Amino acid sequence: MKTKATFYHAGCPVCVAAEQTVAQGLDPNRYDVELVHLGDSKDRVSEAESAGVQSVPAIVIDGNAFHINFGADLSVLKG
Amino acid sequence: MKTKATFYHAGCPVCVAAEQTVAQGLDPNRYDVELVHLGDSKDRVSEAESAGVQSVPAIVIDGNAFHINFGADLSVLKG
Repeated sequence: MKTKATFYHAGCPVCVAAEQTVAQGLDPNRYDVELVHLGDSKDRVSEAESAGVQSVPAIVIDGNAFHINFGADLSVLKG
Repeated sequence: MKTKATFYHAGCPVCVAAEQTVAQGLDPNRYDVELVHLGDSKDRVSEAESAGVQSVPAIVIDGNAFHINFGADLSVLKG
């Protein structure tokens, strides 16, 4: 059973670098990585927030939020 | 040829979580991950700094520094 990893981003340059290197660098034998663009999927902002995400890019693995550098605050993606 | 990934940390709880999840989650078929404890290896602080690391935990992949959450500023590990 693979571990779910959810990568939240907003298409920003910082996000793209983190996605291409860290998110897509995870072992595909152990992780199922879902990429979520919070600008396009605003209905998932609250889900990210509940998981502890404060800014993007961030990846949530096993319920833990890991913020990777800083692209944008989650608040600008709301509403 | 694997890509070199260098994970810099200082043994802090935030560092350990990032190490166990993100650094060790990287695909071993594509990445050679080196773990560097900057508290124990102060001679490598300048190397981390040159790579753009400002705080730990951080992982440097392909010359790009990715800070993962925030454990400690690099300045406290100097000297």
